[in-house]
Amino acid sequence: MQSFDRINPFEARELIRRGDWVKPTSGLAGGYTQANLAVLPKELAFEFLLFCQRNPKPCPVLDVTEPGSAIPAIVAPHADLRVDIPKYRVYRHGELVEERTDIKDLWDDSMVGFLLGCSFTFEHALLNNDISVRHIEQDCNVPMFKTNMECIKAGRFEGPMVVSMRPIPEKDVVRAVQVTSRFPSVHGAPVHIGNPESIGIRDIANPDFGDPVEVRDGEVPVFWACGVTPQAVAMHVKPEIMITHAPGHMFITDVRDEKFGVL
Amino acid sequence: MQSFDRINPFEARELIRRGDWVKPTSGLAGGYTQANLAVLPKELAFEFLLFCQRNPKPCPVLDVTEPGSAIPAIVAPHADLRVDIPKYRVYRHGELVEERTDIKDLWDDSMVGFLLGCSFTFEHALLNNDISVRHIEQDCNVPMFKTNMECIKAGRFEGPMVVSMRPIPEKDVVRAVQVTSRFPSVHGAPVHIGNPESIGIRDIANPDFGDPVEVRDGEVPVFWACGVTPQAVAMHVKPEIMITHAPGHMFITDVRDEKFGVL
Repeated sequence: MQSFDRINPFEARELIRRGDWVKPTSGLAGGYTQANLAVLPKELAFEFLLFCQRNPKPCPVLDVTEPGSAIPAIVAPHADLRVDIPKYRVYRHGELVEERTDIKDLWDDSMVGFLLGCSFTFEHALLNNDISVRHIEQDCNVPMFKTNMECIKAGRFEGPMVVSMRPIPEKDVVRAVQVTSRFPSVHGAPVHIGNPESIGIRDIANPDFGDPVEVRDGEVPVFWACGVTPQAVAMHVKPEIMITHAPGHMFITDVRDEKFGVL
Repeated sequence: MQSFDRINPFEARELIRRGDWVKPTSGLAGGYTQANLAVLPKELAFEFLLFCQRNPKPCPVLDVTEPGSAIPAIVAPHADLRVDIPKYRVYRHGELVEERTDIKDLWDDSMVGFLLGCSFTFEHALLNNDISVRHIEQDCNVPMFKTNMECIKAGRFEGPMVVSMRPIPEKDVVRAVQVTSRFPSVHGAPVHIGNPESIGIRDIANPDFGDPVEVRDGEVPVFWACGVTPQAVAMHVKPEIMITHAPGHMFITDVRDEKFGVL
Protein backbone atom coordinates (compact mmCIF):
# COMPACT_ATOMS: atom_id res chain seq x y z
CA MET A 1 0.00 0.00 0.00
CA GLN A 2 1.29 3.44 -0.94
CA SER A 3 1.90 5.72 2.01
CA PHE A 4 -0.14 8.79 1.14
CA ASP A 5 1.25 10.84 4.00
CA ARG A 6 4.69 10.69 2.31
CA ILE A 7 3.72 11.96 -1.15
CA ASN A 8 4.47 15.56 -2.03
CA PRO A 9 1.85 18.28 -2.60
CA PHE A 10 2.25 18.10 -6.38
CA GLU A 11 1.50 14.37 -6.39
CA ALA A 12 -1.38 14.84 -3.94
CA ARG A 13 -3.03 17.49 -6.14
CA GLU A 14 -2.49 15.24 -9.20
CA LEU A 15 -4.39 12.43 -7.45
CA ILE A 16 -7.19 14.84 -6.61
CA ARG A 17 -7.28 16.42 -10.06
CA ARG A 18 -7.56 12.98 -11.71
CA GLY A 19 -10.50 12.12 -9.46
CA ASP A 20 -8.58 9.40 -7.63
CA TRP A 21 -8.96 11.01 -4.19
CA VAL A 22 -12.53 12.08 -3.36
CA LYS A 23 -12.36 12.02 0.43
CA PRO A 24 -11.04 14.12 3.33
CA THR A 25 -7.43 15.22 2.95
CA SER A 26 -6.34 14.73 6.58
CA GLY A 27 -3.02 12.87 6.57
CA LEU A 28 -2.41 13.44 2.84
CA ALA A 29 1.05 14.92 2.00
CA GLY A 30 1.97 15.06 5.69
CA GLY A 31 3.82 18.15 6.91
CA TYR A 32 2.46 20.43 4.17
CA THR A 33 -0.03 23.12 5.08
CA GLN A 34 -3.64 22.55 4.10
CA ALA A 35 -6.05 25.44 3.59
CA ASN A 36 -9.72 26.41 3.65
CA LEU A 37 -11.14 27.80 0.40
CA ALA A 38 -13.64 30.61 -0.08
CA VAL A 39 -14.40 31.93 -3.57
CA LEU A 40 -16.34 35.17 -3.86
CA PRO A 41 -17.21 37.63 -6.63
CA LYS A 42 -14.79 40.54 -7.04
CA GLU A 43 -17.30 43.13 -5.84
CA LEU A 44 -17.20 41.53 -2.37
CA ALA A 45 -13.46 40.85 -2.35
CA PHE A 46 -12.24 44.06 -0.70
CA GLU A 47 -14.77 43.85 2.13
CA PHE A 48 -14.04 40.19 2.72
CA LEU A 49 -10.27 40.74 2.71
CA LEU A 50 -10.78 43.61 5.13
CA PHE A 51 -12.89 41.36 7.35
CA CYS A 52 -10.08 38.80 7.37
CA GLN A 53 -7.52 41.52 8.06
CA ARG A 54 -9.55 42.70 11.06
CA ASN A 55 -10.15 39.19 12.38
CA PRO A 56 -6.88 37.37 11.77
CA LYS A 57 -7.45 34.68 14.40
CA PRO A 58 -10.55 33.14 12.77
CA CYS A 59 -9.56 34.29 9.25
CA PRO A 60 -5.80 33.83 8.71
CA VAL A 61 -5.22 34.62 5.03
CA LEU A 62 -2.58 32.47 3.34
CA ASP A 63 -3.20 33.55 -0.25
CA VAL A 64 -5.66 35.53 -2.40
CA THR A 65 -5.80 35.13 -6.17
CA GLU A 66 -5.84 37.99 -8.63
CA PRO A 67 -9.46 38.54 -9.74
CA GLY A 68 -10.29 35.95 -12.41
CA SER A 69 -7.18 33.85 -11.75
CA ALA A 70 -7.49 30.41 -10.17
CA ILE A 71 -3.77 30.23 -9.37
CA PRO A 72 -2.68 30.70 -5.74
CA ALA A 73 0.64 32.19 -6.82
CA ILE A 74 2.18 32.39 -3.37
CA VAL A 75 1.41 29.07 -1.71
CA ALA A 76 1.09 26.83 -4.80
CA PRO A 77 2.01 28.52 -8.09
CA HIS A 78 1.39 25.36 -10.17
CA ALA A 79 -2.04 24.58 -8.72
CA ASP A 80 -5.52 25.32 -10.03
CA LEU A 81 -8.19 26.13 -7.44
CA ARG A 82 -10.93 24.95 -9.85
CA VAL A 83 -9.85 21.30 -9.88
CA ASP A 84 -7.35 20.67 -7.06
CA ILE A 85 -9.79 20.19 -4.18
CA PRO A 86 -11.54 16.82 -3.78
CA LYS A 87 -14.98 18.22 -3.07
CA TYR A 88 -16.50 21.72 -3.37
CA ARG A 89 -19.70 23.24 -2.06
CA VAL A 90 -21.62 25.81 -4.09
CA TYR A 91 -23.82 28.34 -2.30
CA ARG A 92 -26.25 30.69 -4.03
CA HIS A 93 -27.74 33.53 -2.01
CA GLY A 94 -26.47 31.83 1.15
CA GLU A 95 -28.06 28.42 0.40
CA LEU A 96 -26.08 25.23 -0.29
CA VAL A 97 -27.23 24.16 -3.74
CA GLU A 98 -24.65 21.63 -4.86
CA GLU A 99 -21.56 19.57 -4.05
CA ARG A 100 -19.18 18.80 -6.90
CA THR A 101 -15.61 17.68 -7.62
CA ASP A 102 -14.60 20.56 -9.86
CA ILE A 103 -15.81 24.11 -10.45
CA LYS A 104 -14.35 24.73 -13.91
CA ASP A 105 -17.61 25.84 -15.51
CA LEU A 106 -18.53 28.07 -12.56
CA TRP A 107 -15.31 30.07 -12.59
CA ASP A 108 -15.37 33.38 -14.44
CA ASP A 109 -13.41 36.63 -14.62
CA SER A 110 -15.06 38.03 -11.51
CA MET A 111 -13.96 35.25 -9.16
CA VAL A 112 -11.46 35.80 -6.33
CA GLY A 113 -10.17 32.77 -4.41
CA PHE A 114 -9.20 33.09 -0.74
CA LEU A 115 -7.11 30.43 0.98
CA LEU A 116 -7.26 30.57 4.77
CA GLY A 117 -5.14 28.67 7.29
CA CYS A 118 -6.66 25.57 8.89
CA SER A 119 -6.19 23.86 12.24
CA PHE A 120 -4.32 20.84 10.87
CA THR A 121 -1.07 22.82 11.13
CA PHE A 122 -1.29 23.61 14.83
CA GLU A 123 -2.71 20.15 15.64
CA HIS A 124 0.42 18.73 14.07
CA ALA A 125 2.46 20.97 16.37
CA LEU A 126 0.48 19.77 19.40
CA LEU A 127 1.02 16.10 18.43
CA ASN A 128 4.76 16.75 17.97
CA ASN A 129 4.77 17.93 21.58
CA ASP A 130 3.04 14.75 22.79
CA ILE A 131 -0.21 16.64 23.39
CA SER A 132 -2.95 14.33 22.18
CA VAL A 133 -5.86 15.70 20.12
CA ARG A 134 -9.13 14.04 21.20
CA HIS A 135 -11.10 14.18 17.94
CA ILE A 136 -8.16 12.62 16.12
CA GLU A 137 -8.06 9.85 18.76
CA GLN A 138 -11.80 9.37 18.38
CA ASP A 139 -11.56 9.60 14.58
CA CYS A 140 -14.33 12.16 14.29
CA ASN A 141 -14.72 15.82 13.33
CA VAL A 142 -13.58 18.54 15.78
CA PRO A 143 -16.45 20.01 17.86
CA MET A 144 -17.22 23.63 16.88
CA PHE A 145 -19.35 26.21 18.70
CA LYS A 146 -20.82 29.61 17.99
CA THR A 147 -19.72 32.07 20.70
CA ASN A 148 -20.84 35.42 22.08
CA MET A 149 -17.58 36.97 20.79
CA GLU A 150 -18.46 39.28 17.91
CA CYS A 151 -15.99 39.58 15.07
CA ILE A 152 -14.97 43.09 14.04
CA LYS A 153 -17.32 44.17 11.25
CA ALA A 154 -16.08 45.10 7.77
CA GLY A 155 -18.61 46.47 5.32
CA ARG A 156 -21.41 43.91 5.02
CA PHE A 157 -19.45 41.17 6.78
CA GLU A 158 -20.24 40.64 10.46
CA GLY A 159 -21.16 37.90 12.91
CA PRO A 160 -20.00 35.86 15.90
CA MET A 161 -16.72 34.01 16.08
CA VAL A 162 -16.96 30.23 15.75
CA VAL A 163 -14.44 28.27 17.83
CA SER A 164 -13.18 24.69 17.85
CA MET A 165 -12.61 22.91 21.16
CA ARG A 166 -9.90 20.47 22.20
CA PRO A 167 -9.75 19.01 25.74
CA ILE A 168 -6.19 19.43 27.05
CA PRO A 169 -4.78 17.83 30.25
CA GLU A 170 -4.18 20.54 32.88
CA LYS A 171 -0.43 19.89 32.90
CA ASP A 172 -0.21 20.58 29.15
CA VAL A 173 -2.30 23.76 28.89
CA VAL A 174 0.63 26.19 29.13
CA ARG A 175 2.60 24.24 26.55
CA ALA A 176 -0.44 24.13 24.24
CA VAL A 177 -0.58 27.94 24.35
CA GLN A 178 3.14 28.26 23.63
CA VAL A 179 3.18 25.75 20.81
CA THR A 180 0.19 27.16 18.94
CA SER A 181 1.27 30.79 19.48
CA ARG A 182 4.13 30.09 17.07
CA PHE A 183 1.59 29.80 14.24
CA PRO A 184 -0.48 33.01 14.03
CA SER A 185 -1.17 32.42 10.33
CA VAL A 186 -3.08 29.21 11.09
CA HIS A 187 -5.31 30.42 13.97
CA GLY A 188 -2.44 30.71 16.46
CA ALA A 189 -2.95 30.80 20.22
CA PRO A 190 -6.25 29.78 21.82
CA VAL A 191 -8.91 32.47 22.24
CA HIS A 192 -10.23 31.01 25.50
CA ILE A 193 -9.25 28.48 28.17
CA GLY A 194 -11.75 26.88 30.54
CA ASN A 195 -15.36 27.80 31.35
CA PRO A 196 -17.42 27.45 28.14
CA GLU A 197 -20.19 29.72 29.48
CA SER A 198 -17.84 32.72 29.60
CA ILE A 199 -17.86 32.77 25.80
CA GLY A 200 -21.55 31.92 25.44
CA ILE A 201 -21.36 28.15 25.06
CA ARG A 202 -24.18 26.52 27.06
CA ASP A 203 -23.52 22.83 26.48
CA ILE A 204 -20.05 21.59 25.71
CA ALA A 205 -21.54 18.19 24.75
CA ASN A 206 -23.66 19.71 21.97
CA PRO A 207 -21.49 21.42 19.37
CA ASP A 208 -23.10 23.60 16.68
CA PHE A 209 -20.93 21.96 14.02
CA GLY A 210 -18.83 18.77 13.97
CA ASP A 211 -18.99 15.99 16.55
CA PRO A 212 -19.00 15.99 20.37
CA VAL A 213 -15.86 14.69 22.10
CA GLU A 214 -15.27 13.55 25.67
CA VAL A 215 -13.78 15.99 28.22
CA ARG A 216 -12.19 13.80 30.91
CA ASP A 217 -11.42 14.51 34.58
CA GLY A 218 -8.29 16.68 34.82
CA GLU A 219 -8.79 18.08 31.35
CA VAL A 220 -9.59 21.68 30.45
CA PRO A 221 -11.58 22.65 27.36
CA VAL A 222 -9.38 24.92 25.24
CA PHE A 223 -10.91 26.97 22.42
CA TRP A 224 -9.30 28.13 19.19
CA ALA A 225 -10.73 30.52 16.59
CA CYS A 226 -12.12 28.42 13.75
CA GLY A 227 -12.03 28.72 9.96
CA VAL A 228 -15.78 28.09 9.81
CA THR A 229 -16.20 31.71 10.99
CA PRO A 230 -15.51 33.45 7.66
CA GLN A 231 -17.74 31.00 5.77
CA ALA A 232 -20.59 31.52 8.25
CA VAL A 233 -20.16 35.28 8.07
CA ALA A 234 -19.99 35.30 4.26
CA MET A 235 -23.09 33.12 4.02
CA HIS A 236 -24.94 35.69 6.06
CA VAL A 237 -24.26 38.30 3.34
CA LYS A 238 -26.03 35.93 0.88
CA PRO A 239 -23.71 36.54 -2.06
CA GLU A 240 -25.13 35.63 -5.46
CA ILE A 241 -22.51 32.88 -5.57
CA MET A 242 -19.96 31.60 -3.10
CA ILE A 243 -17.88 28.45 -3.39
CA THR A 244 -16.04 26.68 -0.56
CA HIS A 245 -14.29 23.37 -0.01
CA ALA A 246 -16.48 20.64 1.51
CA PRO A 247 -15.64 20.13 5.21
CA GLY A 248 -12.38 18.20 5.62
CA HIS A 249 -11.69 18.29 1.86
CA MET A 250 -8.94 20.90 1.95
CA PHE A 251 -6.54 22.50 -0.50
CA ILE A 252 -2.96 21.23 -0.16
CA THR A 253 -0.30 23.94 -0.48
CA ASP A 254 3.40 23.66 -1.36
CA VAL A 255 4.38 25.22 1.98
CA ARG A 256 5.60 23.13 4.88
CA ASP A 257 3.80 23.73 8.19
CA GLU A 258 7.03 24.78 9.90
CA LYS A 259 7.46 27.71 7.49
CA PHE A 260 4.49 29.41 9.17
CA GLY A 261 6.20 29.40 12.57
CA VAL A 262 7.06 32.97 13.58
CA LEU A 263 10.02 31.78 15.61
CA MET B 1 8.55 71.47 31.22
CA GLN B 2 5.85 68.94 30.46
CA SER B 3 7.11 65.44 29.77
CA PHE B 4 5.59 64.66 26.38
CA ASP B 5 6.64 61.03 26.48
CA ARG B 6 4.29 60.51 29.43
CA ILE B 7 1.10 61.94 27.92
CA ASN B 8 -1.51 59.51 26.60
CA PRO B 9 -2.44 59.08 22.92
CA PHE B 10 -5.65 61.08 23.33
CA GLU B 11 -3.73 64.06 24.71
CA ALA B 12 -1.05 63.71 22.05
CA ARG B 13 -3.61 63.78 19.23
CA GLU B 14 -5.30 66.77 20.86
CA LEU B 15 -2.00 68.67 20.80
CA ILE B 16 -1.55 67.76 17.14
CA ARG B 17 -5.14 68.57 16.21
CA ARG B 18 -4.88 72.01 17.81
CA GLY B 19 -1.75 72.73 15.80
CA ASP B 20 0.46 72.79 18.90
CA TRP B 21 2.72 69.95 17.73
CA VAL B 22 4.00 70.37 14.16
CA LYS B 23 7.15 68.28 14.34
CA PRO B 24 8.25 64.61 14.34
CA THR B 25 6.36 62.39 16.80
CA SER B 26 9.31 60.30 17.98
CA GLY B 27 9.14 60.12 21.78
CA LEU B 28 5.58 61.47 21.98
CA ALA B 29 3.17 59.33 24.09
CA GLY B 30 5.95 56.81 24.80
CA GLY B 31 5.01 53.12 24.70
CA TYR B 32 2.08 53.63 22.33
CA THR B 33 2.35 52.33 18.78
CA GLN B 34 2.85 54.89 16.04
CA ALA B 35 1.84 54.21 12.46
CA ASN B 36 2.55 55.14 8.85
CA LEU B 37 -0.39 56.56 6.88
CA ALA B 38 -1.34 55.96 3.25
CA VAL B 39 -4.64 57.26 1.88
CA LEU B 40 -5.79 55.99 -1.50
CA PRO B 41 -8.98 56.15 -3.58
CA LYS B 42 -11.36 53.21 -3.11
CA GLU B 43 -10.77 51.86 -6.61
CA LEU B 44 -7.15 51.06 -5.66
CA ALA B 45 -7.94 49.84 -2.14
CA PHE B 46 -8.38 46.14 -2.84
CA GLU B 47 -5.16 45.88 -4.83
CA PHE B 48 -3.21 47.83 -2.23
CA LEU B 49 -4.60 45.74 0.64
CA LEU B 50 -3.71 42.61 -1.33
CA PHE B 51 -0.20 43.97 -1.88
CA CYS B 52 0.15 44.51 1.88
CA GLN B 53 -1.27 41.05 2.57
CA ARG B 54 1.32 39.50 0.23
CA ASN B 55 4.20 41.54 1.63
CA PRO B 56 3.54 41.69 5.37
CA LYS B 57 7.14 42.43 6.34
CA PRO B 58 7.40 45.81 4.57
CA CYS B 59 3.62 46.44 4.76
CA PRO B 60 2.26 45.38 8.16
CA VAL B 61 -1.37 46.55 8.20
CA LEU B 62 -2.59 47.82 11.57
CA ASP B 63 -5.92 49.26 10.45
CA VAL B 64 -7.88 50.12 7.31
CA THR B 65 -10.83 52.52 7.37
CA GLU B 66 -14.19 51.83 5.79
CA PRO B 67 -14.29 53.68 2.44
CA GLY B 68 -15.12 57.35 3.13
CA SER B 69 -14.52 57.08 6.88
CA ALA B 70 -11.54 58.81 8.49
CA ILE B 71 -11.89 56.82 11.72
CA PRO B 72 -9.39 54.03 12.39
CA ALA B 73 -11.96 52.05 14.38
CA ILE B 74 -9.60 49.34 15.58
CA VAL B 75 -6.47 51.16 16.73
CA ALA B 76 -7.95 54.57 17.67
CA PRO B 77 -11.77 54.74 17.50
CA HIS B 78 -11.89 58.39 18.67
CA ALA B 79 -9.30 59.69 16.22
CA ASP B 80 -9.70 61.44 12.88
CA LEU B 81 -7.11 60.69 10.21
CA ARG B 82 -7.78 64.06 8.52
CA VAL B 83 -6.45 66.16 11.41
CA ASP B 84 -4.54 63.95 13.86
CA ILE B 85 -1.19 63.84 12.09
CA PRO B 86 1.21 66.80 12.43
CA LYS B 87 2.18 66.95 8.78
CA TYR B 88 0.79 65.34 5.62
CA ARG B 89 2.15 64.97 2.11
CA VAL B 90 -0.16 65.12 -0.90
CA TYR B 91 0.86 63.36 -4.11
CA ARG B 92 -0.94 63.73 -7.43
CA HIS B 93 -0.09 61.29 -10.22
CA GLY B 94 2.96 60.23 -8.21
CA GLU B 95 4.34 63.75 -7.70
CA LEU B 96 4.62 65.49 -4.34
CA VAL B 97 2.55 68.65 -4.73
CA GLU B 98 1.99 69.88 -1.20
CA GLU B 99 2.70 69.51 2.52
CA ARG B 100 -0.06 70.53 4.92
CA THR B 101 -1.21 70.10 8.52
CA ASP B 102 -4.70 68.82 7.81
CA ILE B 103 -6.45 67.16 4.88
CA LYS B 104 -10.07 67.92 5.74
CA ASP B 105 -10.96 69.50 2.40
CA LEU B 106 -9.21 66.72 0.43
CA TRP B 107 -11.10 63.88 2.05
CA ASP B 108 -14.14 62.56 0.21
CA ASP B 109 -16.36 59.47 0.12
CA SER B 110 -13.90 57.54 -2.01
CA MET B 111 -10.99 57.73 0.43
CA VAL B 112 -9.59 54.69 2.26
CA GLY B 113 -7.00 55.20 4.99
CA PHE B 114 -4.34 52.56 5.64
CA LEU B 115 -2.30 52.57 8.86
CA LEU B 116 0.86 50.48 8.67
CA GLY B 117 3.21 49.51 11.49
CA CYS B 118 6.43 51.51 11.91
CA SER B 119 9.86 50.70 13.23
CA PHE B 120 9.52 52.75 16.43
CA THR B 121 7.86 49.72 18.10
CA PHE B 122 10.69 47.28 17.51
CA GLU B 123 13.35 49.91 18.19
CA HIS B 124 11.75 50.37 21.58
CA ALA B 125 12.06 46.62 22.11
CA LEU B 126 15.74 46.72 21.11
CA LEU B 127 16.43 49.59 23.54
CA ASN B 128 14.63 47.70 26.32
CA ASN B 129 17.14 44.91 25.73
CA ASP B 130 20.11 47.28 25.98
CA ILE B 131 20.72 47.09 22.24
CA SER B 132 21.56 50.60 21.19
CA VAL B 133 20.09 52.06 17.98
CA ARG B 134 22.70 54.13 16.13
CA HIS B 135 20.48 56.69 14.36
CA ILE B 136 18.79 57.46 17.68
CA GLU B 137 22.24 57.92 19.28
CA GLN B 138 23.24 60.16 16.37
CA ASP B 139 19.87 61.97 16.44
CA CYS B 140 19.29 61.55 12.72
CA ASN B 141 16.94 59.64 10.42
CA VAL B 142 17.44 55.88 9.92
CA PRO B 143 19.38 55.01 6.72
CA MET B 144 17.15 53.32 4.11
CA PHE B 145 18.13 51.46 0.95
CA LYS B 146 16.42 50.08 -2.15
CA THR B 147 17.27 46.38 -2.53
CA ASN B 148 17.24 43.76 -5.27
CA MET B 149 14.49 41.90 -3.38
CA GLU B 150 11.28 42.23 -5.39
CA CYS B 151 8.03 42.43 -3.49
CA ILE B 152 5.27 40.05 -4.52
CA LYS B 153 3.13 41.86 -7.10
CA ALA B 154 -0.58 42.52 -6.58
CA GLY B 155 -2.52 44.03 -9.46
CA ARG B 156 -0.78 47.27 -10.43
CA PHE B 157 1.37 47.38 -7.30
CA GLU B 158 4.94 46.11 -7.66
CA GLY B 159 8.50 47.11 -6.93
CA PRO B 160 11.60 46.43 -4.84
CA MET B 161 11.61 46.16 -1.07
CA VAL B 162 13.12 49.12 0.77
CA VAL B 163 15.01 48.25 3.97
CA SER B 164 16.26 50.20 6.94
CA MET B 165 19.70 49.42 8.41
CA ARG B 166 20.88 49.37 12.01
CA PRO B 167 24.45 48.41 12.95
CA ILE B 168 24.30 45.80 15.73
CA PRO B 169 27.29 44.56 17.81
CA GLU B 170 28.09 40.94 16.87
CA LYS B 171 27.29 39.72 20.36
CA ASP B 172 23.77 41.16 20.15
CA VAL B 173 22.72 39.99 16.68
CA VAL B 174 20.96 36.81 17.84
CA ARG B 175 19.08 38.70 20.54
CA ALA B 176 18.10 41.40 18.03
CA VAL B 177 16.51 38.71 15.86
CA GLN B 178 14.65 37.19 18.81
CA VAL B 179 13.42 40.49 20.17
CA THR B 180 12.09 41.85 16.87
CA SER B 181 10.59 38.48 15.83
CA ARG B 182 8.03 39.00 18.59
CA PHE B 183 6.53 41.89 16.60
CA PRO B 184 5.51 40.66 13.12
CA SER B 185 2.88 43.40 12.84
CA VAL B 186 5.55 46.12 12.97
CA HIS B 187 8.09 44.71 10.44
CA GLY B 188 9.18 41.86 12.74
CA ALA B 189 12.45 39.98 12.27
CA PRO B 190 15.24 41.33 10.05
CA VAL B 191 15.17 40.40 6.37
CA HIS B 192 18.96 40.25 6.07
CA ILE B 193 22.06 40.15 8.28
CA GLY B 194 25.53 41.11 7.06
CA ASN B 195 26.85 41.65 3.53
CA PRO B 196 24.94 44.56 1.95
CA GLU B 197 25.85 43.49 -1.59
CA SER B 198 23.89 40.24 -1.22
CA ILE B 199 20.69 42.27 -1.31
CA GLY B 200 21.86 44.72 -3.95
CA ILE B 201 23.20 47.52 -1.75
CA ARG B 202 26.44 48.88 -3.23
CA ASP B 203 27.44 51.50 -0.71
CA ILE B 204 26.33 51.26 2.91
CA ALA B 205 27.50 54.84 3.47
CA ASN B 206 25.11 56.23 0.83
CA PRO B 207 21.52 55.46 1.71
CA ASP B 208 18.73 56.08 -0.83
CA PHE B 209 16.59 57.73 1.89
CA GLY B 210 17.37 59.06 5.37
CA ASP B 211 20.84 59.70 6.75
CA PRO B 212 24.06 57.64 6.78
CA VAL B 213 25.18 56.20 10.13
CA GLU B 214 28.51 54.82 11.24
CA VAL B 215 29.09 51.03 11.22
CA ARG B 216 31.88 50.40 13.74
CA ASP B 217 34.39 47.56 14.04
CA GLY B 218 32.71 44.49 15.50
CA GLU B 219 29.29 45.60 14.31
CA VAL B 220 27.16 43.89 11.69
CA PRO B 221 24.71 45.78 9.46
CA VAL B 222 21.25 44.33 10.07
CA PHE B 223 18.40 45.09 7.66
CA TRP B 224 14.68 45.30 8.37
CA ALA B 225 11.85 45.66 5.86
CA CYS B 226 10.82 49.32 5.79
CA GLY B 227 7.49 51.11 5.67
CA VAL B 228 8.76 53.32 2.88
CA THR B 229 8.23 50.32 0.57
CA PRO B 230 4.43 50.59 0.18
CA GLN B 231 4.64 54.35 -0.39
CA ALA B 232 7.34 53.92 -3.05
CA VAL B 233 5.34 51.16 -4.71
CA ALA B 234 2.07 53.13 -4.62
CA MET B 235 3.78 56.22 -6.05
CA HIS B 236 4.90 54.12 -8.99
CA VAL B 237 1.21 53.44 -9.83
CA LYS B 238 0.75 57.25 -10.05
CA PRO B 239 -2.69 57.38 -8.44
CA GLU B 240 -4.72 60.50 -9.15
CA ILE B 241 -4.34 61.32 -5.48
CA MET B 242 -2.43 59.74 -2.62
CA ILE B 243 -1.87 61.19 0.82
CA THR B 244 0.76 60.08 3.33
CA HIS B 245 2.21 61.33 6.60
CA ALA B 246 5.37 63.43 6.24
CA PRO B 247 8.47 61.42 7.24
CA GLY B 248 8.71 61.07 11.03
CA HIS B 249 5.32 62.75 11.54
CA MET B 250 3.39 59.61 12.46
CA PHE B 251 -0.11 58.74 13.59
CA ILE B 252 -0.32 57.84 17.30
CA THR B 253 -2.61 54.89 18.07
CA ASP B 254 -4.32 53.89 21.33
CA VAL B 255 -2.52 50.54 21.32
CA ARG B 256 0.50 49.88 23.50
CA ASP B 257 3.54 48.47 21.70
CA GLU B 258 3.54 45.35 23.85
CA LYS B 259 0.07 44.39 22.62
CA PHE B 260 1.57 43.62 19.22
CA GLY B 261 3.93 41.01 20.68
CA VAL B 262 2.90 37.53 19.49
CA LEU B 263 4.31 35.91 22.60
